[in-house]
Amino acid sequence: MSLTRTKATFAPPIIAARRWLDGVTFPPERPLINVSQAAPAAAPPTELRQIMADIALNDDSVHLYGPDLGLPELRAEIAAQWSAHYGGTVTPAQVAITSGCNQAFAAAISALTGEGDEVILPTPWYFNHKMWLDMSGVEAVPLATGTDMLPDVATAASLITSRTRAIALVSPNNPAGVEYPAELVRAFYELAKTHGIKLILDETYRDFDARSGAAHDLFTDPDWPETLIDLYSFSKAFRLTGHRVGAMIASVEMIGEVEKFIDSVTICPNQIGQHAALWGMRNLGQWLAGERAEILDRRAAIEEGFPVLAAKGWKLLGLGAYFAYVEHPYAIGSDALARQLVREAGVLLLPATMFVPEGDPAGERQLRIAFANLDRAGIGLMFERLAALAI
Amino acid sequence: MSLTRTKATFAPPIIAARRWLDGVTFPPERPLINVSQAAPAAAPPTELRQIMADIALNDDSVHLYGPDLGLPELRAEIAAQWSAHYGGTVTPAQVAITSGCNQAFAAAISALTGEGDEVILPTPWYFNHKMWLDMSGVEAVPLATGTDMLPDVATAASLITSRTRAIALVSPNNPAGVEYPAELVRAFYELAKTHGIKLILDETYRDFDARSGAAHDLFTDPDWPETLIDLYSFSKAFRLTGHRVGAMIASVEMIGEVEKFIDSVTICPNQIGQHAALWGMRNLGQWLAGERAEILDRRAAIEEGFPVLAAKGWKLLGLGAYFAYVEHPYAIGSDALARQLVREAGVLLLPATMFVPEGDPAGERQLRIAFANLDRAGIGLMFERLAALAI
Repeated sequence: MSLTRTKATFAPPIIAARRWLDGVTFPPERPLINVSQAAPAAAPPTELRQIMADIALNDDSVHLYGPDLGLPELRAEIAAQWSAHYGGTVTPAQVAITSGCNQAFAAAISALTGEGDEVILPTPWYFNHKMWLDMSGVEAVPLATGTDMLPDVATAASLITSRTRAIALVSPNNPAGVEYPAELVRAFYELAKTHGIKLILDETYRDFDARSGAAHDLFTDPDWPETLIDLYSFSKAFRLTGHRVGAMIASVEMIGEVEKFIDSVTICPNQIGQHAALWGMRNLGQWLAGERAEILDRRAAIEEGFPVLAAKGWKLLGLGAYFAYVEHPYAIGSDALARQLVREAGVLLLPATMFVPEGDPAGERQLRIAFANLDRAGIGLMFERLAALAI
Repeated sequence: MSLTRTKATFAPPIIAARRWLDGVTFPPERPLINVSQAAPAAAPPTELRQIMADIALNDDSVHLYGPDLGLPELRAEIAAQWSAHYGGTVTPAQVAITSGCNQAFAAAISALTGEGDEVILPTPWYFNHKMWLDMSGVEAVPLATGTDMLPDVATAASLITSRTRAIALVSPNNPAGVEYPAELVRAFYELAKTHGIKLILDETYRDFDARSGAAHDLFTDPDWPETLIDLYSFSKAFRLTGHRVGAMIASVEMIGEVEKFIDSVTICPNQIGQHAALWGMRNLGQWLAGERAEILDRRAAIEEGFPVLAAKGWKLLGLGAYFAYVEHPYAIGSDALARQLVREAGVLLLPATMFVPEGDPAGERQLRIAFANLDRAGIGLMFERLAALAI
């Protein structure tokens, strides 16, 4: 008897890590520093909350089913802003609104693959991508990154087989933080195009990219719909994680396939969240710029403070958006170290074993720090605690 | 090259049917009667909308990720109400909150099956169940129902193979309306138990069952978690279709598997919808009783008015909850008739071809009428228009 789809994959890492907290007490003068999850810890701005309250009370339509592919106005807004930002042409029919960005990835995979197909993922990978591939009967082909945490195009090319259906990149990267250079993204795009496969580009963290302007030029190719599947999340930009709204930008044909997935799994994205996303896109540009500046300042704090850890043998491997990806100097595995950090440093972070294939030695030395919720003081405190470790 | 998962299934029927409206005009004195979808057409009561507005404005936590398996209070409320209603024991750990009931079904299938497995579905089936099985690489084994629209246990037994993982029932039934007798549900449960497979019972429409009290006694078996997977939707009870909240009641082990699916596809159900469902469960019992009485009155109106159609050769095959399932007397297929009804009668309904396997002759003569949104006057008008058809 074969494994069921869910039994073919592992338990959600964030939930598993949260269980490490069970039975551990954190005194008030030394509270837990939780850098395990990439999620805003505060609510959206008051005006946006007021909008949600107003529509809940006064707009009958938000309580009824909406279109499977999302609110037409939101699809049109994304099409317009994407076209302007990336200097290409995106039409509303090329946009689907999803119940969070994970659903956009899941739907893309279901539209692209069948049992036994392959998708190439740079490692460390985003664990939910790996989980969904496992559940889909698709082999996640690991593409090891170098010391700069960037994937290599020639290596990727060597991994393509007759069963490869896509390469999936995340930039800015989760978990490694690094922003993929525009030329690198373009080179992956060309590789996918040459082989007639898709490039899935998850840009969940794009609003916190340190570079100004477009992070890649893929939409300037008029043929982009043949190759590119672009994914986005409203969760981080407007602090809407509790509302589950994401998006896919892809060919009309792909959106048609995705509609089947959405119809069968969630019917439509929830409506209040979509209205919030739309209002945010239209009105919170300036506010989001402030958010970005704050995250970039925290990123700078990581860089400035890191010498304290470097002196103890730690290495900063990747940094950007919400994440720092680090190498620890101790003679124990990253999983054991992460559990020890909860008890001895009051720090919850995720070990790289959660982001790499089983047995990959890279996983033993590395850790992900989702620093975005820590202000400068918090970052300083975290470094102090890590530097004080006696292992 | 094998089909991708989405290409292994068909386009969403409701969307396909909606396209039949394109280019057809409905004059104000003869507006469209839309009985294609089982969805409330009005917003929830004002107090519930006020609750949603209040929490959007004042409760920070609703904007953040919630637990994958849903709000603990909502899981506990379901456990308590299910235990009381069905006279058995359901614990909060045996409850998962999902992004609508379709996701509960999808997650159950992913937890139970692998490629090439089989699930038995009575026909006519709920098309999203069939679609998800197609997308999962699982064979939907059709179990034809009799003229009473009820499935037969002995026939089901003869369809069980070594690859069968579950039997999925919907009661009250979508699309056929019929309420499965408690003994029939029990017999299916015993059949599943004997064969070590699961019984999935979708009770989306249970709040509109004409019978009082529990519709089945499955939860009175202390071993129910070994066999039963019960599904529920908040969409119909509290008019929350736009908020996507459903539930699964199953074994703790099954809920653990479902958590992987939820984590990878939507991370968590949206929070405002869950709070609305919780408030509804705690405060809208009386209101819901009124809703049920209204639907039951509409159901009575269908029964009382049907002789007008019977005189023209129509037959009422099934009736209950939101649906009437009927047989038409014309020498054309149900799909062609449904399209014709849009133009000639200003009525949009779904042909049985959308609910049965391709080529099943039962599909040619039958139609589903989702009557719940029509008041008595509307039902009378629909019957007039159908009786006046000159085909």
